[in-house]
Amino acid sequence: MTNPRAIISDVAPRDGLQSIGPFVPTATKIALVRAIYDAGIRRMEIGSFVSPKAVPQMADTAEVLRAALAMPGLECTVLVPNRRGFDLAAASGAQRLGLFMSVTESHNKANLNRTREESFADLAAIVRDAKAAGLELRFNLSTVFHCPFEGVVPDGEALDWIERVVALDPAMEVALADTTGNAAPDQVRRIFERAHRSWGLRFAFHGHDTYGMGVANVSAAWAAGVRIFDSAAGGLGGCPFAPGATGNVATEDVAWLFRRMGVETGVDWNRLLAAADLAAQIPGGTPGGRLRGVPSVRQAA
Amino acid sequence: MTNPRAIISDVAPRDGLQSIGPFVPTATKIALVRAIYDAGIRRMEIGSFVSPKAVPQMADTAEVLRAALAMPGLECTVLVPNRRGFDLAAASGAQRLGLFMSVTESHNKANLNRTREESFADLAAIVRDAKAAGLELRFNLSTVFHCPFEGVVPDGEALDWIERVVALDPAMEVALADTTGNAAPDQVRRIFERAHRSWGLRFAFHGHDTYGMGVANVSAAWAAGVRIFDSAAGGLGGCPFAPGATGNVATEDVAWLFRRMGVETGVDWNRLLAAADLAAQIPGGTPGGRLRGVPSVRQAA
Repeated sequence: MTNPRAIISDVAPRDGLQSIGPFVPTATKIALVRAIYDAGIRRMEIGSFVSPKAVPQMADTAEVLRAALAMPGLECTVLVPNRRGFDLAAASGAQRLGLFMSVTESHNKANLNRTREESFADLAAIVRDAKAAGLELRFNLSTVFHCPFEGVVPDGEALDWIERVVALDPAMEVALADTTGNAAPDQVRRIFERAHRSWGLRFAFHGHDTYGMGVANVSAAWAAGVRIFDSAAGGLGGCPFAPGATGNVATEDVAWLFRRMGVETGVDWNRLLAAADLAAQIPGGTPGGRLRGVPSVRQAA
Repeated sequence: MTNPRAIISDVAPRDGLQSIGPFVPTATKIALVRAIYDAGIRRMEIGSFVSPKAVPQMADTAEVLRAALAMPGLECTVLVPNRRGFDLAAASGAQRLGLFMSVTESHNKANLNRTREESFADLAAIVRDAKAAGLELRFNLSTVFHCPFEGVVPDGEALDWIERVVALDPAMEVALADTTGNAAPDQVRRIFERAHRSWGLRFAFHGHDTYGMGVANVSAAWAAGVRIFDSAAGGLGGCPFAPGATGNVATEDVAWLFRRMGVETGVDWNRLLAAADLAAQIPGGTPGGRLRGVPSVRQAA
């Protein structure tokens, strides 16, 4: 019997760095991608083709992507918020695009400055064009479980939007994100179980560890059948507006969970700790996660 | 429909303080018990009637117990390792005793200096005498999931010992402990589901957060039907031989998990944070847990 497998997609290069104030030199970004790659991770969110005025930290995404595409077997996703981002990504040689919108109206407006219907119409057109161009797609739904403005999201509202997104393309991977870290494990399990029952095993989980529930939610998603997980080396990705709050669930914490459950992730443990240390040392970052601070993990590795 | 309920048993006064080097003044211990009680917790592990030479920190258990028994509605457990501890506990007015032994031979020998069979025979006699004396009992099984000497414990070995313990008394609460923090959520869920199926809903989970899996394991135990959980305010209880390693899963983290799942615990959130802060400030302690460090938790409370 072969062990079950989980795919870890490291989002540190994008979600982890995005909110850092001081510009992280391109060479540092590429070194981070390289360190995560060397740890055995074969999927990453490399950057975002957003306006450099809105998110100056992502201004060098094309250059980081070029370096990442040269690493054999690495699946590189770049985020694309709109038509202009799509054009830039296509021109940069991107092969896999990440689209995104929110399940809740108020978060979509705050984050993307448009209604959900407007976002959905634009993204549906991009899905068509990207498929015609032979590009791979992932659709990220934010605030599936909890919204910073509207609180807990009713199951029905989440499932309605999942259904609309799924209908855009029967093969497209769809990630359900716990944007605020407020999802509860029973809710995570319930939503994924319903989604899998209705639309098959194509869902990924993007979790945050703001309230220490990140690993519990990953575990609940796994129990519900999810096999693709977003996480960030070093738990990078704190919100600059909530000091002390950690960001994405840490890749090393997720890898440890799977290791203990006998689930293969392809990770080299010592190298992953090295990548996590590198991520945590980036000036201006707000690292999180638990495993880096446990000496016996290093002794045992 | 009423909300489901979970019982939190705070073990900070015993498991949390036990390994602290400098003696914690009796008044501080009683203040900690009082703070946890004021937060709404109605079960605690107050102390241990062990030899003061072996564990000097627990030398004042009789005095702390006296103060705790005066708090209305508080269920006070004291640990009893052997016949002498049983006599001391009974003489101190204890009404609820915690017995303990390990599932693995090497840990039982290291911790209790005797074989499992020897421990089991002694404890079986104490169970009989305690029942005859009208005392309530809880039987704690250590190293159910993982042993520091033997690694992962085979399900069969754990279930065999659970069966023997359960047979001692059909009504006795039995706690299954993840002593090293190395249990995996799927293992926790599997063992508790099997135990519940065979012997009914009488099991408690005692988890550690050494590797950041504490909340995930509590969540898995809850999903398997467990309704009684041990935890320590402030995550107190680090092992002095593993610097940086945290100890018991933090009561505030567990309470937050249940709050988000809509499970009643009877906890007053602000007062629980105050108790956690108090626990974390005890000199010589190694506090853990996640929620104390998240500012937005305090703003929202």
